[in-house]
Amino acid sequence: MSGSGLGDTEEQVAGGGLLHRRMLLRGGVLAGGLGAAFAARAADPIGAGSPDGMKVPGAAFSGYGTPAHWREGIKRTIGALPDRPGTGASRTPLERLEGSITPAGLHFERHHNGIPDIDPAAHTLIVHGLVKQSLVFSLDALMRYPMQSRIHFVECAGNSGGMIAPAAAQNTAGGLHGLLSCSEWTGIPVSSLLDETGIDPKATWLLAEGADAAGMSRSVPLWKCMDDAMIALYQNGEPIRPEQGFPMRLLVPGFQGNMNVKWLRRLKLTAGPTYTKDETSKYTELMRDGKARQFQFGMGVKSVITKPSFGMTMSGQGLYEISGVAWSGAGRVARVEVSADGGNSWAEAALNGPVLPKAVTRFRAPWRWAGGPSLLLSRATEETGDVQPVRADWLAQYAPGQNYHYNAINAWQVEAGGSIKHVYA
Amino acid sequence: MSGSGLGDTEEQVAGGGLLHRRMLLRGGVLAGGLGAAFAARAADPIGAGSPDGMKVPGAAFSGYGTPAHWREGIKRTIGALPDRPGTGASRTPLERLEGSITPAGLHFERHHNGIPDIDPAAHTLIVHGLVKQSLVFSLDALMRYPMQSRIHFVECAGNSGGMIAPAAAQNTAGGLHGLLSCSEWTGIPVSSLLDETGIDPKATWLLAEGADAAGMSRSVPLWKCMDDAMIALYQNGEPIRPEQGFPMRLLVPGFQGNMNVKWLRRLKLTAGPTYTKDETSKYTELMRDGKARQFQFGMGVKSVITKPSFGMTMSGQGLYEISGVAWSGAGRVARVEVSADGGNSWAEAALNGPVLPKAVTRFRAPWRWAGGPSLLLSRATEETGDVQPVRADWLAQYAPGQNYHYNAINAWQVEAGGSIKHVYA
Repeated sequence: MSGSGLGDTEEQVAGGGLLHRRMLLRGGVLAGGLGAAFAARAADPIGAGSPDGMKVPGAAFSGYGTPAHWREGIKRTIGALPDRPGTGASRTPLERLEGSITPAGLHFERHHNGIPDIDPAAHTLIVHGLVKQSLVFSLDALMRYPMQSRIHFVECAGNSGGMIAPAAAQNTAGGLHGLLSCSEWTGIPVSSLLDETGIDPKATWLLAEGADAAGMSRSVPLWKCMDDAMIALYQNGEPIRPEQGFPMRLLVPGFQGNMNVKWLRRLKLTAGPTYTKDETSKYTELMRDGKARQFQFGMGVKSVITKPSFGMTMSGQGLYEISGVAWSGAGRVARVEVSADGGNSWAEAALNGPVLPKAVTRFRAPWRWAGGPSLLLSRATEETGDVQPVRADWLAQYAPGQNYHYNAINAWQVEAGGSIKHVYA
Repeated sequence: MSGSGLGDTEEQVAGGGLLHRRMLLRGGVLAGGLGAAFAARAADPIGAGSPDGMKVPGAAFSGYGTPAHWREGIKRTIGALPDRPGTGASRTPLERLEGSITPAGLHFERHHNGIPDIDPAAHTLIVHGLVKQSLVFSLDALMRYPMQSRIHFVECAGNSGGMIAPAAAQNTAGGLHGLLSCSEWTGIPVSSLLDETGIDPKATWLLAEGADAAGMSRSVPLWKCMDDAMIALYQNGEPIRPEQGFPMRLLVPGFQGNMNVKWLRRLKLTAGPTYTKDETSKYTELMRDGKARQFQFGMGVKSVITKPSFGMTMSGQGLYEISGVAWSGAGRVARVEVSADGGNSWAEAALNGPVLPKAVTRFRAPWRWAGGPSLLLSRATEETGDVQPVRADWLAQYAPGQNYHYNAINAWQVEAGGSIKHVYA
């Protein structure tokens, strides 16, 4: 059964055609009636013609593979200063990806003065300041320490900052929210190195400094370093890439991206925050009441629908899967709800497991589009109970122009003709 | 406390210096006495000199990143026929990687006549044979179906086949066992497509055919397709790479790699296996008693230590982390044990979670090397209770020369000087 009529086993759970997520279980959607709406009937036996690729020997092996040339359009979108090509950001094309892992080649970048070319044999990490014994770690030395592998997202504090503009920008999911990526990171707990140096009881913070030409540096609370911070040496199984901090970066899971200092050269234990240029000229949030909040590290709970989204066109009425990504700096995503009627009603999406703390979780929801206008929203809730706010409530907290830590509910307007606009809702 | 003496909290749990895995927990190893054995003492305050990379602007952004040029030696090792450069295999350099995900660019390859260059807009998947209605699926049509994302390994049935040689080859972990990789795959359950076509009750198998110049094809039991097989469209978040089957491959989790047919063009439902050239000229196992086993699909439980391993040199006595990969085609890895005395005694390794079914699991064990000869082994057990056999027991099952599905315990001999040899044990 195809078209806009409900299939036999379809259970509509919210307005605008949202169906129960159990339909995504084996047999559910199809028993419910996709009914060959998308496939063409084939003559049987199939014709004698073979594809051209079966008639000539194919290409040879390679030492390190690359994406298909047919998909070379899937790349990061770069925004850099005209006279300083290493200052700016590039964004992950979320709407072209699936699952929860971001390939390293498409991980977003944010550089303040370009990517240094660091000889790993010459690079050292110095741990000093309020320690019992300052130590210098070569990469070879670090390789001796016990490691951990964990899947975590990194998100820039300025991600989605354009969402404060009065008019909704007509841009893709990645263009709007693509300062977000997720990888399997492997490295050494920072606590292991601090156990080596010893900690002066006066120490409560660390200064983390990168070896780039911006000398990018941030203050990190000591408790975070003793909790789950790591010196990351590997990303998605291989040595970390230059644009992600080769040969090593600080990883502070769930904290704003800027604090995950790349090309890490120094950790200095201090009695308080250092107030570096990178945390006084930026990353302070001016509130609506005139107060300013500094050192707001944790990234809030957030989600965005990646399919369907701006730049795509619906291919006719009938069943669709709504797919998107959700994440929270506080822990696990507990629930994602989607709405197809602008928030009047909500359906619970299926979460693609394993649902891991401080990692991107893929969510999916079955949806029968009747062909008319539909306003699609997603709303994530994390395990401690925090919920994505609506945009108006988010804006109301802050002074005009403050655009860090934007995590409000996002909306796509599907129009009757099948085109998709970015709107505020 | 460094050197070969035990630290204060070290608990030796097996011969040759193997320590309790709880030492890998926060504080455990270091409290136990790494004692700055690997780091150098630093003058404090640190010197005025900054690395060169901090004095000049760094490199610009890129649309799609690549590994550091310093690590260009980390590549697949290629073995192909001299006159047919697309026939052979390339292996994942397991000993240079960490964690459990394999970057797509380093996923092993096995091609029978090269990599076809397939226009995704022209490619179709035909499902026919013993179905109620034959259907042709374009890539656009497939994109409408509900998807799933799962982390699974793929391993060639011929992986580690060289291990039957009378003398142990002096080769790396990847050179010996690198026809193994692990990715996050996203795609459509095969069962969804079969629900669309309907299934003739006589159907019990499927023929899966690739669109390469070898017309690589295999028979797959219908139950597997109704269980957890998928049409994979994405690998590690991005569209699947050409050498992994762009634009689509069959994924049959835990089954021998060859059955995960790449460049998939056709699924034909049949009343029995098709006995294709790819499954009669290969992949039949001749047993010691003269019988032959055909259609032995599941890959056995297996593990290999990647660090330390052949090609590395120990950097002095003291604490080390033994790190490796374990996997099973039957489900989850339940336990990995390591031995530092050739199997006289065993210590349980820590498993890096989440431990997922039919996926690579990273294991780690703390080890204090006293500087003398040490014979390192790893032995994995999977959740249904199967254990890796010793090499002699594995060989005893088969006729001489049979080398598919090798999954015996692997061994590295650490010598007194710190060099590492591949040996049989």
